[in-house]
Amino acid sequence: MNIEELIRLSLEEDICHGDITTDSLHLEGKHLSARLIAKEKGVIAGLDVFCKTFAMVDSRIEIELLISDGAKVDKGEVICLLSGSSASMLKAERVALNFLQRLSGIATQTAAMVAAIGDNRAKLLDTRKTTPLLRQLEKYAVRTGGGYNHRFGLYDMIMLKENHILAAGSISNAVKQVKAHDMSHKLEVEVTNLDELQEAVSCEVDRVMLDNMSLADMKTAVGKFYGKVELEASGNVSLATISQIAETGVDFISSGSMTHSYKSLDISLIFEEVK
Amino acid sequence: MNIEELIRLSLEEDICHGDITTDSLHLEGKHLSARLIAKEKGVIAGLDVFCKTFAMVDSRIEIELLISDGAKVDKGEVICLLSGSSASMLKAERVALNFLQRLSGIATQTAAMVAAIGDNRAKLLDTRKTTPLLRQLEKYAVRTGGGYNHRFGLYDMIMLKENHILAAGSISNAVKQVKAHDMSHKLEVEVTNLDELQEAVSCEVDRVMLDNMSLADMKTAVGKFYGKVELEASGNVSLATISQIAETGVDFISSGSMTHSYKSLDISLIFEEVK
Amino acid sequence: MNIEELIRLSLEEDICHGDITTDSLHLEGKHLSARLIAKEKGVIAGLDVFCKTFAMVDSRIEIELLISDGAKVDKGEVICLLSGSSASMLKAERVALNFLQRLSGIATQTAAMVAAIGDNRAKLLDTRKTTPLLRQLEKYAVRTGGGYNHRFGLYDMIMLKENHILAAGSISNAVKQVKAHDMSHKLEVEVTNLDELQEAVSCEVDRVMLDNMSLADMKTAVGKFYGKVELEASGNVSLATISQIAETGVDFISSGSMTHSYKSLDISLIFEEVK
Amino acid sequence: MNIEELIRLSLEEDICHGDITTDSLHLEGKHLSARLIAKEKGVIAGLDVFCKTFAMVDSRIEIELLISDGAKVDKGEVICLLSGSSASMLKAERVALNFLQRLSGIATQTAAMVAAIGDNRAKLLDTRKTTPLLRQLEKYAVRTGGGYNHRFGLYDMIMLKENHILAAGSISNAVKQVKAHDMSHKLEVEVTNLDELQEAVSCEVDRVMLDNMSLADMKTAVGKFYGKVELEASGNVSLATISQIAETGVDFISSGSMTHSYKSLDISLIFEEVK
Amino acid sequence: MNIEELIRLSLEEDICHGDITTDSLHLEGKHLSARLIAKEKGVIAGLDVFCKTFAMVDSRIEIELLISDGAKVDKGEVICLLSGSSASMLKAERVALNFLQRLSGIATQTAAMVAAIGDNRAKLLDTRKTTPLLRQLEKYAVRTGGGYNHRFGLYDMIMLKENHILAAGSISNAVKQVKAHDMSHKLEVEVTNLDELQEAVSCEVDRVMLDNMSLADMKTAVGKFYGKVELEASGNVSLATISQIAETGVDFISSGSMTHSYKSLDISLIFEEVK
Amino acid sequence: MNIEELIRLSLEEDICHGDITTDSLHLEGKHLSARLIAKEKGVIAGLDVFCKTFAMVDSRIEIELLISDGAKVDKGEVICLLSGSSASMLKAERVALNFLQRLSGIATQTAAMVAAIGDNRAKLLDTRKTTPLLRQLEKYAVRTGGGYNHRFGLYDMIMLKENHILAAGSISNAVKQVKAHDMSHKLEVEVTNLDELQEAVSCEVDRVMLDNMSLADMKTAVGKFYGKVELEASGNVSLATISQIAETGVDFISSGSMTHSYKSLDISLIFEEVK
Repeated sequence: MNIEELIRLSLEEDICHGDITTDSLHLEGKHLSARLIAKEKGVIAGLDVFCKTFAMVDSRIEIELLISDGAKVDKGEVICLLSGSSASMLKAERVALNFLQRLSGIATQTAAMVAAIGDNRAKLLDTRKTTPLLRQLEKYAVRTGGGYNHRFGLYDMIMLKENHILAAGSISNAVKQVKAHDMSHKLEVEVTNLDELQEAVSCEVDRVMLDNMSLADMKTAVGKFYGKVELEASGNVSLATISQIAETGVDFISSGSMTHSYKSLDISLIFEEVK
Repeated sequence: MNIEELIRLSLEEDICHGDITTDSLHLEGKHLSARLIAKEKGVIAGLDVFCKTFAMVDSRIEIELLISDGAKVDKGEVICLLSGSSASMLKAERVALNFLQRLSGIATQTAAMVAAIGDNRAKLLDTRKTTPLLRQLEKYAVRTGGGYNHRFGLYDMIMLKENHILAAGSISNAVKQVKAHDMSHKLEVEVTNLDELQEAVSCEVDRVMLDNMSLADMKTAVGKFYGKVELEASGNVSLATISQIAETGVDFISSGSMTHSYKSLDISLIFEEVK
Repeated sequence: MNIEELIRLSLEEDICHGDITTDSLHLEGKHLSARLIAKEKGVIAGLDVFCKTFAMVDSRIEIELLISDGAKVDKGEVICLLSGSSASMLKAERVALNFLQRLSGIATQTAAMVAAIGDNRAKLLDTRKTTPLLRQLEKYAVRTGGGYNHRFGLYDMIMLKENHILAAGSISNAVKQVKAHDMSHKLEVEVTNLDELQEAVSCEVDRVMLDNMSLADMKTAVGKFYGKVELEASGNVSLATISQIAETGVDFISSGSMTHSYKSLDISLIFEEVK
Repeated sequence: MNIEELIRLSLEEDICHGDITTDSLHLEGKHLSARLIAKEKGVIAGLDVFCKTFAMVDSRIEIELLISDGAKVDKGEVICLLSGSSASMLKAERVALNFLQRLSGIATQTAAMVAAIGDNRAKLLDTRKTTPLLRQLEKYAVRTGGGYNHRFGLYDMIMLKENHILAAGSISNAVKQVKAHDMSHKLEVEVTNLDELQEAVSCEVDRVMLDNMSLADMKTAVGKFYGKVELEASGNVSLATISQIAETGVDFISSGSMTHSYKSLDISLIFEEVK
Repeated sequence: MNIEELIRLSLEEDICHGDITTDSLHLEGKHLSARLIAKEKGVIAGLDVFCKTFAMVDSRIEIELLISDGAKVDKGEVICLLSGSSASMLKAERVALNFLQRLSGIATQTAAMVAAIGDNRAKLLDTRKTTPLLRQLEKYAVRTGGGYNHRFGLYDMIMLKENHILAAGSISNAVKQVKAHDMSHKLEVEVTNLDELQEAVSCEVDRVMLDNMSLADMKTAVGKFYGKVELEASGNVSLATISQIAETGVDFISSGSMTHSYKSLDISLIFEEVK
Repeated sequence: MNIEELIRLSLEEDICHGDITTDSLHLEGKHLSARLIAKEKGVIAGLDVFCKTFAMVDSRIEIELLISDGAKVDKGEVICLLSGSSASMLKAERVALNFLQRLSGIATQTAAMVAAIGDNRAKLLDTRKTTPLLRQLEKYAVRTGGGYNHRFGLYDMIMLKENHILAAGSISNAVKQVKAHDMSHKLEVEVTNLDELQEAVSCEVDRVMLDNMSLADMKTAVGKFYGKVELEASGNVSLATISQIAETGVDFISSGSMTHSYKSLDISLIFEEVK
């Protein structure tokens, strides 16, 4: 589903057979101007989908962006100015904000985690724990907040998890089967201890996910294999723990928390005059 | 968009041209059994969409539910047992959990707020601040957690907000116009002080939203108008504040927080054996 | 389904792989002008969908509207002037007229029934007996003809019919269950005699549908309950009977006849010159 | 759009986010039986779409058909028996009837016109004046009533109307162009007098539409050209006029009235018991 | 499915969640110009879908066509010039060429077969052996190459094949049944010998398909029935055999080879400068 | 678009408003059995979509497969046996064959090229030069014939082509930009000579495409870089040239010819009896 279809269906979900409040008021010809204001500090993401939502309701609504996606805003900062038909603005407002506030919430949380990593080499990766149908947007918000994208789905990278390995008999068997079948995608293997890590490296995989390993083991892993395979820490990653994990020297830290449990950024559309 | 379509598109988002990991392993004929386990305390919601997701991938996967939606689970509690083709289970797992964890997170948060209201008469209402395309599911999760649904969209209830009133000139004018046009939907008016409340009540509306009014004013409102109009408190509603608001005696408290900023409930699918 | 999708599918239904007549004639570059003419007296509704149908086939077709929806036309009156590519005009004509003639037929019939109500207080309501997929348009046509809309579907108003009451045990039980579950929609109850009406009123419902009650009973109902509950007459409503029903003093008269059994208004597109 | 899609969208139109009445009553486990009864005399058409509508809501609803499409029913006659979940029956009822009543109305009107043609050779044809998106069903209803189908759309038969001829310069030119381009479809030409008819016949077309010609001219046409070209009468066809037209001896009489202006047949679903 | 939908889905097939190469390079603001060049001799078909593909990716890409569909090109000939955003051009290129090369391949092969027919009266017809979902485009390519279209599908012409006849008992029975049911479409019958041909002609069908008949029998058929029924040769038609078949004097020769087994025409987009 | 949707739309393309031939014959209750026969030697691919096409028309048609996808068949070999309703079989036949013949044609051509590679190490890869909307099926057919899949689209592998490099200034710059942006996909670079190859290898890319390089240069490339980077030969690959290319020792040979220019395998459905 592309963005236009996503917006169209979201508007239909909200408006269905009609905005019975606005339609009752016969506002034809009345115009509103409005300011979009951040009501708390954060990182903005989603202005494109925000603008497209208004445009889909009424292509004549004008929006002047004062900042761009990725900008850090303070409480009270004006994000953009809008003007256009009252009826159209009132119809589009909620859906547009529902997108923008979520994506900005994700970008804000991502930026906080990236800041906690600091000068360590680790890059923050997202996961597939995204909201159904919003994955592209949410992964975009992660990038906007300074994170990087892990695979987009089951189709663009090979990831051998515990159960795949169980089913194939061993890491080596699983890797062998995969390499005989697919030559065009990166291959990552999930390991839970240093022995499995050693086996995975011997099989010449591209990346290893260190699943819930101790900080000590992660440090050992980095000492032994840094540069020979990409090392990705996973499990128990939060704003509280990410610094320490980063200090082990791993190449990547992946976390689902940015997308599975976010707080919408508080953003309001303040209407200013009707004429 | 109905549930089946939503699941189908969500699976397509994740699987696209194929699960290149699983397909490489040629798991045809291998079967897995699994337990779905709550890894923290909470209220479960979304078992229907969870099951339908597996069924859409492979109708032969068997799921035995041990509890139903609305059940309170403890950490470690088993929610259901699954068994079926390894390949199918691995393909459906993430999408099914993405639904279930979100909805259970919403139900859990709702239940906490309902508990905080306690014996007060107020009913907790949701809002339109839901995730695009997931509104029906999220509003269902709110009901499952003990809350009630406000309108589903712009189409099934009339809600005169500040800007509608501004555009119409006054509460009285706005209500008059609406009543001349629509006879089949409930009518709510947003007010910010006791004078506006008085005006709204004079116009014989069904419900009044007390927007960001002080606890004192809400108490006054209840004293004067309880039983004459439905009184709905809104603004600054959180787990921390909801008790006090409820104690004013309002009929309803509406809050977007259950759906705009949730924490997914930690739930895991533990695979157990391959045969 | 929104209007654009409805028009797009309707054109596909008619044109499918191509207009094999027009395409065979190679009319590229030839232009037509045309007049849209009412061939009988009536009320016009549907000019927006009429124009959009032509626009979807060819955005360069020009249409000059001489009247607006809701206008009463006489036989021979010109509704609008069109000009544009011959091929495009010939492709769009039938679908555009299929919409306009039906909607104008509904508006015309509605206007006649509204006229028959005269100065009585009753408002004419439509029903859910609409053509599948055309409900929004047909309900719009009813409004255009001077009627009002009853609920749009099963989702925006609560309507307890005989069978709901039967299943719940009694009117009181049914109303109680509904009120415990839904707080955001109007509640109407169908009654067939004065005792049921009394029970419904005691339950504090918003509206009562007097189903196939005698004129005498309706008069009694109005005498006893006018102002305490909205009274809606239903059953056996036709142009022949509606005056008498209105004279009982009910608030509403609902009738499916405007949408389930209409006569398309006779309207023709007269092509005038080819150049 | 196929029938299943048409039904699915029609149910979504009516039910949208849910049947808030039925859902409030928690009817799980309650069953209804019902009789479908003709409340006036007519010809039944649409039982397949009627049954599929119930099946799409709930595949466990059982329907026992007592008659088949095309059957003539008397007032009070039972068409079929239904039983199943109360909630499902109440959700599907209106949409299923909206289809069945319209199609039976069309079949009934068609049968009346076919009866009026009597023993004359003329076959009754429909037109493209059908309800948008329901053409296949409505043309099926015409066949069920004893009529025949004219072309299904612009894509399956060539029909040179006045404006095509005007654009091409003459009937002969238009026919020549068409024959050089398309070899796979029947070719009909609209004529308004006997001279044009003569020209069309000379061009060896398959059928000629005698548009609004007098009864006398039609008789002359039949006398001269019967057997050499198919002759189709069109214009001013109604139950009142069709006998006389048929008596001229034309091969076909086409009329839009069966589909553009029908009266739904009065059919009711009578619920009988709840258990 | 209309052309726009076909292009949109084709682009989604290729681009899915994004062009990860181009997006990584941040080419915003960089422009390319390009020449579309035929790398072998042939007939061009599909420029409209080619242009629309670029336009759907980016409406600001400019394309200057130097030739039109149907033009014969030599090796090295420039077909059109393009300029626009680098990123957009790189995204649209492959899908646009996938359409154009296939359609031009079909037009080229068709033109060769038409040339082989030479001055004989036979017209070359296509079949239903087209690529799923591309039938309209492929049949257009056949016309562009000088061929004619047989029926578009099962819905616009009646074609009694061996199995239909088997099921109906005889050619005569089959034709009789068809004529009693359908009055609006051409009727063709497949025959395998001269006796069947005689029977088909006696039934007054519109066209007869001579299926895999010998050249001698086809000549006999033409001698006996030319002008009384359309004669279509079918079976074993190739560039090697078509001349001889045409010389028998049949009216039509139908062949699936143009669409079921084509060679894409070699066409390249040569990018020229980046600025 | 998933397979079911693809089949559904393909059937709609062919059947549209109905199979007017079969429907006219009233074959209800008549059954056919049939054998699917290879009329030339080849490799079968597509039996799943073939069967699903029949199943979508009529789920009661029975198909007994005698061989599986990937099987080599001789002329005259029976592929499967079918039986079911005559009408359903006749409706599904053409679309089912249109899929099966194309995919088997691709598998057959792929197998021939793989055979020509013989014992050399090179694996045959496909390209993105596939038929719009059929890419998944066509890539499946390539695998069935013994080939391997290159990337599925622009979204699952990074491929720096000439124009990307041009836009980025140099191979090194382009690779650097890509690596800073995307960490989850394989990276291939197109080179045209040994110097560019050296530069690409220095940048540590995963694979290099040797575009239209001479056999001598490819041999040199293999001598210098085999084992350090994957080497893929591309350009001018045909059944005539592929052996020599393989003998250079490259890892991969990619060719669009299997999918952009195939010959449908000749396969027929022979109907056997009607009862």
